[in-house]
Amino acid sequence: MDTFAVKGHVIYTKTKDEVTVTENAYIVCENGKAAGVFPSLPERFRGIEIRDFGDKLIIPGLIDMHLHAPQYAFRGLGMDMELIPWLNTYAFKEEAKYADTGYAQKKYRAFCDELKTGATTRAAIFATIHMPATYILMDMLEASGLVTYVGKVNMDRNAPDDLRETTHESYESTLAWVKDCASRYVNTKPIITPRFVPSCTGELMRSIGGIAEQYGVPVQSHLSENAGEIAWVKELHPEIASYSRVYFECGLFGHVPTVMAHCIHLSEEEMELAQQRGVYIAHCPQSNTNLASGIAPVREMLQRGMRVGLGTDVAGGFSASVLRAMGDAIQASKLYTALADRSRPPVTLSEALYMATKGGGGFWGKTGSFEPGYEFDAVVLDDSDINDAAELTPLQRFERVVYLSPEIRADAKFVKGVRIKL
Amino acid sequence: MDTFAVKGHVIYTKTKDEVTVTENAYIVCENGKAAGVFPSLPERFRGIEIRDFGDKLIIPGLIDMHLHAPQYAFRGLGMDMELIPWLNTYAFKEEAKYADTGYAQKKYRAFCDELKTGATTRAAIFATIHMPATYILMDMLEASGLVTYVGKVNMDRNAPDDLRETTHESYESTLAWVKDCASRYVNTKPIITPRFVPSCTGELMRSIGGIAEQYGVPVQSHLSENAGEIAWVKELHPEIASYSRVYFECGLFGHVPTVMAHCIHLSEEEMELAQQRGVYIAHCPQSNTNLASGIAPVREMLQRGMRVGLGTDVAGGFSASVLRAMGDAIQASKLYTALADRSRPPVTLSEALYMATKGGGGFWGKTGSFEPGYEFDAVVLDDSDINDAAELTPLQRFERVVYLSPEIRADAKFVKGVRIKL
Repeated sequence: MDTFAVKGHVIYTKTKDEVTVTENAYIVCENGKAAGVFPSLPERFRGIEIRDFGDKLIIPGLIDMHLHAPQYAFRGLGMDMELIPWLNTYAFKEEAKYADTGYAQKKYRAFCDELKTGATTRAAIFATIHMPATYILMDMLEASGLVTYVGKVNMDRNAPDDLRETTHESYESTLAWVKDCASRYVNTKPIITPRFVPSCTGELMRSIGGIAEQYGVPVQSHLSENAGEIAWVKELHPEIASYSRVYFECGLFGHVPTVMAHCIHLSEEEMELAQQRGVYIAHCPQSNTNLASGIAPVREMLQRGMRVGLGTDVAGGFSASVLRAMGDAIQASKLYTALADRSRPPVTLSEALYMATKGGGGFWGKTGSFEPGYEFDAVVLDDSDINDAAELTPLQRFERVVYLSPEIRADAKFVKGVRIKL
Repeated sequence: MDTFAVKGHVIYTKTKDEVTVTENAYIVCENGKAAGVFPSLPERFRGIEIRDFGDKLIIPGLIDMHLHAPQYAFRGLGMDMELIPWLNTYAFKEEAKYADTGYAQKKYRAFCDELKTGATTRAAIFATIHMPATYILMDMLEASGLVTYVGKVNMDRNAPDDLRETTHESYESTLAWVKDCASRYVNTKPIITPRFVPSCTGELMRSIGGIAEQYGVPVQSHLSENAGEIAWVKELHPEIASYSRVYFECGLFGHVPTVMAHCIHLSEEEMELAQQRGVYIAHCPQSNTNLASGIAPVREMLQRGMRVGLGTDVAGGFSASVLRAMGDAIQASKLYTALADRSRPPVTLSEALYMATKGGGGFWGKTGSFEPGYEFDAVVLDDSDINDAAELTPLQRFERVVYLSPEIRADAKFVKGVRIKL
């Protein structure tokens, strides 16, 4: 590791309320961490290598807090159902194919290429129940240079035969995998991944919750996405007060770092529990729109100090772009304002960028900002194809990237201070 | 004009309820009109030229029922306000620049290039109040081969000084322009364009309504987009029962073919009036989302037999793609279902394609379908960059284009039977 600087128009958020923009600035990277953003290079860094990206925009690497690698292959299809029928009709059928390692090899390759060339640097990913395919995915992700959590999915009830494990085999394979991964990868880490309460018995959830605590492995799952799903959880666990409490009682709700996707319909008690337990919320506005699930009150969550990041939720979401997720978060919140609650101001560009970077960043340590001490994840964006108005500020140019060019490829990408091959 | 066929996977809608797909089909064009879609070429067409587009998708040319050419240059910027402040802060400032013909020349060039190379074949376009810039736009559009209505905008009240005409000069310049255009263009037609009620005195609206009737020129305007706007109209015309009735009483509501953008908050009486008068509604879901205006009940409108097309409403909408407008119409309707009314099923892909083609098509004659007798507007789409799943049907591939690749460039484009240069 060495010390170098990248130069360009630097855009990031220290707080949810403000975008910090420094034109023609230097971000210094020391041993993989940001040492600060400077309008001119300080004396003490004289002589370090400068990678000059000229008029381009530089933002922190974007963080995708929730997506399903095996669903990437059918993104943009079957967008005509709500959650439970959609899972049964489309998602589970596709996931079952990952028993075939040849299929997994081919489809995961396309998924990794997309992730690598876009603006994402870190992601929390669902795989399938299949161990061999999950290793294939993890091997590819490790080779990509991205930093990811990958979850072998656990399912021992209410799943089709070819995706349902016994409680015992689900536990045993998860345990063996967690032990094996400890020494196998640098940037690719296992994450305990009960699909969601309807797919996992209490016994399974408690036992994998135990693995999480024993081995210090984080947890990801789904929570409170759809009204039918919530009613189903109530039916399955009538003795437990809420959906969140089911996870809590199984050791899966902030006992280790935990990210829960969606969290659309949380009760006040659940909000308080999630906040108190430090649970990260992966807000997935596009998926929540496509499956007509609703829209989580993310501004309020941020305001009360809850931890909120953005997820693309491929393939409930059709786009794997976190830039698009930013635009979608703003747009969905505007429809919430217009259709449900005029007193609730929409998500701002600043809040959207914050969620996409520093908001979810804490899940990975100090990540998602260029403030000193943060891991140096940076993405250089070349917007020259849409930068047709010479008088625009860097922030205006970035707003246009979010709306006009969300599928933009990264021009250069650094993860933990290392420039990765695109 | 001659007879020829184009060959490919043909996708169109005869009704709002069903997409008609014919794989490896021939669409025969005779003298600029479709003669039908055939799985194999009928005997009577033996020997005609066949333009074979292989595995590509062929859809009717898309129709953009509402957009603002002078706002194209600032699309994707300033998406942080609702309608009236947005107009005052962003839109009017930009439109004032079109007093400068050099500016107009440059910006309208980019606008026309976008329209030409995308999937749009016809559009109803707002220009500005400025006559010279409007001619520049019309000349460029005529050269493009697209079929358009272009409106010199009328504004004689509640507008900044540099965009406000006197009633007399607004009327006189409109009259002179309508007369002049009669012989000037083949595919580019004038359309009477009072900006909206707040910007036009009753006297002006009545007088340009008279021009519309006398010269058989259609009408376009905005209607019922935003609650504040509606209240303002009520204040300006307390004696008239509704926003729609203001237009009606000025001869601007179906006296000639009329398209009204938005129509989000129509009362039942206004819905009936619009239907009875055969008024076309330009549904602009992206703009209505960006400005937090609300979502028009377009399924219900279609169901009761009202005429509904799609508009991109650049630059309330940031995208000039009608494919994106299709996806947005579906997505916005899903959030309506989730947030406002669970009993209202969302817009389907079929309904979205119908609105984007045949729904608005009647405004232009027999347009928007490949049924015999319809004007032959066709767009060939090359989806090979996202067609990574060999087993997909053409309809599935089209669904993915709508969601994954809405900014796709046309591979080939025919307007009224003529292949236009892209």
